[in-house]
Amino acid sequence: MTREMIKMTWQEFAGIKDCITALCVGSVEQHGPHLPLSVDLIIPYKICCALSEEHNLIVAPPVCYGYRSQPATGGGQGFPGTTALDGITLIHTVENILSDLYRQGRKKFLLMSGHFENTAYMSEASYLFTKKHQDAKVVMINWWELVKNETLDNLFKGEFPGWEVEHASLTETSLMMHFCPELVHEDRIPKQKGKKHCPRPVIYPEPRGLVPESGILYSAEGASADIGRAMAEEIIETIGDIIVKEF
Amino acid sequence: MTREMIKMTWQEFAGIKDCITALCVGSVEQHGPHLPLSVDLIIPYKICCALSEEHNLIVAPPVCYGYRSQPATGGGQGFPGTTALDGITLIHTVENILSDLYRQGRKKFLLMSGHFENTAYMSEASYLFTKKHQDAKVVMINWWELVKNETLDNLFKGEFPGWEVEHASLTETSLMMHFCPELVHEDRIPKQKGKKHCPRPVIYPEPRGLVPESGILYSAEGASADIGRAMAEEIIETIGDIIVKEF
Amino acid sequence: MTREMIKMTWQEFAGIKDCITALCVGSVEQHGPHLPLSVDLIIPYKICCALSEEHNLIVAPPVCYGYRSQPATGGGQGFPGTTALDGITLIHTVENILSDLYRQGRKKFLLMSGHFENTAYMSEASYLFTKKHQDAKVVMINWWELVKNETLDNLFKGEFPGWEVEHASLTETSLMMHFCPELVHEDRIPKQKGKKHCPRPVIYPEPRGLVPESGILYSAEGASADIGRAMAEEIIETIGDIIVKEF
Amino acid sequence: MTREMIKMTWQEFAGIKDCITALCVGSVEQHGPHLPLSVDLIIPYKICCALSEEHNLIVAPPVCYGYRSQPATGGGQGFPGTTALDGITLIHTVENILSDLYRQGRKKFLLMSGHFENTAYMSEASYLFTKKHQDAKVVMINWWELVKNETLDNLFKGEFPGWEVEHASLTETSLMMHFCPELVHEDRIPKQKGKKHCPRPVIYPEPRGLVPESGILYSAEGASADIGRAMAEEIIETIGDIIVKEF
Amino acid sequence: MTREMIKMTWQEFAGIKDCITALCVGSVEQHGPHLPLSVDLIIPYKICCALSEEHNLIVAPPVCYGYRSQPATGGGQGFPGTTALDGITLIHTVENILSDLYRQGRKKFLLMSGHFENTAYMSEASYLFTKKHQDAKVVMINWWELVKNETLDNLFKGEFPGWEVEHASLTETSLMMHFCPELVHEDRIPKQKGKKHCPRPVIYPEPRGLVPESGILYSAEGASADIGRAMAEEIIETIGDIIVKEF
Amino acid sequence: MTREMIKMTWQEFAGIKDCITALCVGSVEQHGPHLPLSVDLIIPYKICCALSEEHNLIVAPPVCYGYRSQPATGGGQGFPGTTALDGITLIHTVENILSDLYRQGRKKFLLMSGHFENTAYMSEASYLFTKKHQDAKVVMINWWELVKNETLDNLFKGEFPGWEVEHASLTETSLMMHFCPELVHEDRIPKQKGKKHCPRPVIYPEPRGLVPESGILYSAEGASADIGRAMAEEIIETIGDIIVKEF
Repeated sequence: MTREMIKMTWQEFAGIKDCITALCVGSVEQHGPHLPLSVDLIIPYKICCALSEEHNLIVAPPVCYGYRSQPATGGGQGFPGTTALDGITLIHTVENILSDLYRQGRKKFLLMSGHFENTAYMSEASYLFTKKHQDAKVVMINWWELVKNETLDNLFKGEFPGWEVEHASLTETSLMMHFCPELVHEDRIPKQKGKKHCPRPVIYPEPRGLVPESGILYSAEGASADIGRAMAEEIIETIGDIIVKEF
Repeated sequence: MTREMIKMTWQEFAGIKDCITALCVGSVEQHGPHLPLSVDLIIPYKICCALSEEHNLIVAPPVCYGYRSQPATGGGQGFPGTTALDGITLIHTVENILSDLYRQGRKKFLLMSGHFENTAYMSEASYLFTKKHQDAKVVMINWWELVKNETLDNLFKGEFPGWEVEHASLTETSLMMHFCPELVHEDRIPKQKGKKHCPRPVIYPEPRGLVPESGILYSAEGASADIGRAMAEEIIETIGDIIVKEF
Repeated sequence: MTREMIKMTWQEFAGIKDCITALCVGSVEQHGPHLPLSVDLIIPYKICCALSEEHNLIVAPPVCYGYRSQPATGGGQGFPGTTALDGITLIHTVENILSDLYRQGRKKFLLMSGHFENTAYMSEASYLFTKKHQDAKVVMINWWELVKNETLDNLFKGEFPGWEVEHASLTETSLMMHFCPELVHEDRIPKQKGKKHCPRPVIYPEPRGLVPESGILYSAEGASADIGRAMAEEIIETIGDIIVKEF
Repeated sequence: MTREMIKMTWQEFAGIKDCITALCVGSVEQHGPHLPLSVDLIIPYKICCALSEEHNLIVAPPVCYGYRSQPATGGGQGFPGTTALDGITLIHTVENILSDLYRQGRKKFLLMSGHFENTAYMSEASYLFTKKHQDAKVVMINWWELVKNETLDNLFKGEFPGWEVEHASLTETSLMMHFCPELVHEDRIPKQKGKKHCPRPVIYPEPRGLVPESGILYSAEGASADIGRAMAEEIIETIGDIIVKEF
Repeated sequence: MTREMIKMTWQEFAGIKDCITALCVGSVEQHGPHLPLSVDLIIPYKICCALSEEHNLIVAPPVCYGYRSQPATGGGQGFPGTTALDGITLIHTVENILSDLYRQGRKKFLLMSGHFENTAYMSEASYLFTKKHQDAKVVMINWWELVKNETLDNLFKGEFPGWEVEHASLTETSLMMHFCPELVHEDRIPKQKGKKHCPRPVIYPEPRGLVPESGILYSAEGASADIGRAMAEEIIETIGDIIVKEF
Repeated sequence: MTREMIKMTWQEFAGIKDCITALCVGSVEQHGPHLPLSVDLIIPYKICCALSEEHNLIVAPPVCYGYRSQPATGGGQGFPGTTALDGITLIHTVENILSDLYRQGRKKFLLMSGHFENTAYMSEASYLFTKKHQDAKVVMINWWELVKNETLDNLFKGEFPGWEVEHASLTETSLMMHFCPELVHEDRIPKQKGKKHCPRPVIYPEPRGLVPESGILYSAEGASADIGRAMAEEIIETIGDIIVKEF
């Protein structure tokens, strides 16, 4: 039986007792010429699905839109397609969903995002939710914080350029190749190796030209489905350990 | 090339000029023992995809969660799985998405829902959005208002019991059989024919037992993929005519 | 002694124990050349007053303004005089009043409106209110859902054109003639019989010309105080039965 | 023709050009054993009606509910019947009404209240409204600030105890006797002369017993319709002068 | 050890049990050519510090910004430097701080402001806070309501012109000379004695020229540190008595 | 003349033309046994003051309270004294202040915080503000992102343990020794060297014991005023360069 709530009947949902509900918040954000706008949703959603059977998870319908993209971590609002919610709306959205699942007796939540900029708002939603419902528990995870440096060194043969330039680059491309190869346009991966581009300070209105024209902060050349699979396995195992420990 | 924004790269999105952006708002709501919780999202989303090529639509990533279910039209909040946003959050969500697409130069919107209870909040969002941006245009459609009575009489041989008991019943089941047969559990369709059940007045807290235990207001026996296809074709044609007229 | 809270002293109010509090939400909306802007408030308010003695109701001070008018059901925002609250403000207004009456120990509420567009917002207010105060009960009624089709057939001799064109037309005019003859300008009732005018889809910004220039969707010719009285009696009796059953 | 918008048809409203729109915000608040809960609405509403013909005013439908009552100025929330909106809701309500009238081309507003506690919230609404619409003008008046000390000395023969104890006392009772004698229960005016009772500091939760049991801060003995008429005339004349000067 | 929380370590804070927490809300508002923009914060903050040792107060970090200035009481928004929060933001700010201190077990609050316009919003925050936490207590004080008329007569030899023109005038200047002489520019005190200037009604957008060019409503000539000290002593003693009585 | 707006008269403020306005947002958060609760305000405020003369800055009155502390970066909400605003309130606070300064013609803003958790909310405020006022510019800086790794290596002789454990540790303590020695209790610096403590994932309700009892993530032994001065000089110089480049 499916573990995706979006595909479940209400009776299937009702039949799974004492489970953890995983809620994924994505973003609609440019990810270079070779990846779709929804990378930040697909990766955590697929990770949760992979975890669901063994760890008794139900994967809730996702929140497709997230908080605005920032140049430092994702290209900024200037690229066509990048479409976001206000921070306040995102707080209320996540808080509403957690609360309405709690009303049905669900108290264990895994909250995941593939988009750094969502973190603060999801965190506030979780705080406000658990302040009201102290017998609920929310574990909030960003997948990229779970990959060990050794692993990255091994997989990329010491060429991993650092998380601060990872947007639509080596790790995201590899994971997408593993999880959703049909949405990866390998032939469009920009050749540009790029310099480490880490724009500071944060300026509003967002200046033009902070991010290379392609939208990626570093080249994705060298990404592969095999690397993606290896990373996914490590992430899934680590989250599995966290679930066992926390719930 | 895909017309689903969720699958597009930013360059694909940027390349489609002068298009209409279709935004679908669903619900996570019980739909009987035989249909998934996301019926109200799947139907409008599939309709928009079917329209997209001919009418130059981009189908935006959907809003999976909608407003609360009411006993009179969908079973109410009492069924496990039914999970909703507050009305105020839904207003802000839709208004944010329209505004952020407008920022990118998109001004023509088709707003669709498969869930009656969303209507007022989507309408308010559209009003507030176009009040600020008077050169934008939003056309808002509920698919069930587009099926002619004659068609229903023909398709159901005069046995169509009326929209007020249509929840997870003949039309929704038929459309799901047409669009998503893999998510329909035909063998679980309740036999119960049921009486027309149209609970009034609206009472809060929601009384128990207003809706039959199965969650459907009327039996779905007699639904078929063929009927679904015929309905879909009529709906799609009518929306196509509206698009031609309005944009 | 009066049952209108607006006319009561605090001691009179305090003296009525174990009663139902009726709150009416109106609208300020064009109702053709012959009816005042406040029809949607006057009708439910008068109905509640008529019920108050027998059913131990206190009629709370009304909320005069409601949600925006829509062309499909009332003429739209384009007519001078039509003046509305945002949906969010209406939710908070109703929720505040119910909560502050609850603070005083009032737990039984009859919530009435004469304006279809208010329904969703009043419903959300009631939901949020009873979610916090589960020992309170709100019964929400739209008067036009209580008139039997047989009655309409009898009263209008089979000429009732259907609720979808009822705005400032036969039923509202008749009820106003019964409840408030001094505010009805019979001599200004438009002769135009009109065709059934049921504009779909909903479009923003609101197109001009969806509603006939007079503001009514169908002629009110044939309305009378006698018909109004007969309708009022049926509505009042039905609400009385609901009150007996629910409280 | 009436000047009360609540009684006007849309065409009557549309026909009055270049007028001032008067919006009254009341309160639902105890006013002793002899006055109704709506004193704070009735007095300004009647004043506006009296001004309307000569000064080309339209009197908008009132906002019946206001901000919470405070012990220092009106008895506090502890008396049955006293029912209020949150401050934030009141700000939005007034701002919404002004904005929606502005949308129809109305730009001159007289904003009146009979309830001191409303002042800050009405003021904020006016500020926010005119910040957005700088060609609009709002003149905000509390009637009790317009009565000259000499007048009070004359009318009450030097016995006027001061505004700080005026709640349901001499001035309000006199004005109600003038404007609405049918709602004044003269026989229930408390004999108690009372000491000047001016509770400070403001304490939350509101302490019991700050206000005499009757709900009035000072006796209303000595009030009369004649005094009310004299006060009303002075107030009306002064507002008339302000209107001439400001619009 | 300090009583200012802003200077305390967490262990020092934790070590003070059963205390009262004093929260001061200021304003950033013009106070004539001779006083700083923060007068309305400095005076209550210094008063609380003076009370803290004897009455076991902790003085919380202040809220520097307050509600908008009004011409009637402080010069209005038209002077450079005058910078304010929206009323709604101020309500939430105060409510948040009280609630987060309550979470740590603090239940006794002294809420002080030096700015009349803050009063309503601080009051609403206190109401909302104590509605949720009924075992907390908030005592809210405006220092200028505590100075006896006799005292003013004595100190100013009968020349005190009345509170309605007290803005950056005799009392505020004297108190600043006492508490913060280094921030008073005595040589810049305007000579102008001024007439009592008490602008009514309140008008938006704020008219120019309601307040004299200097920004003060009445001259501060005659102010002195000695007078400031005498006033401060009386205020501090009175608040001390209130604390003893209320906590 | 002072550059601190809190100490300025309105005429002094008005006299400084074409300047940059610096707004600092702090936090009230435990900083170990040796530092005050307001470290995160004092450091950026002092940096701005140091920059003000040369770069024509006015330092606006600060926002003392910030967003909640998280265990990963500052000890979490569990320590007495740690007192925060909701994220939504912080967004509105910053947006209000920027907007009200803009109303007075100020268009260049330096936004600084000493508290990582504020970043997202200050960023959202800046986005919303500049969306409305596109001729304004906000430069947002976290001081700790400006210290070069080489500098840290030199100053701490290769013993700098990394920013992820820097809370009340080497850099903050050194900067406080430089800027505010009177508020540093050197004798209370915990001896514990501690292991790098970097708690992941984020869990709500916040688990007890994630942070060492003292509240610091790493020992501050080795901090000194000299190191603080050297760091401050580098930070100030870098911000100076940014100001020259951006304004």
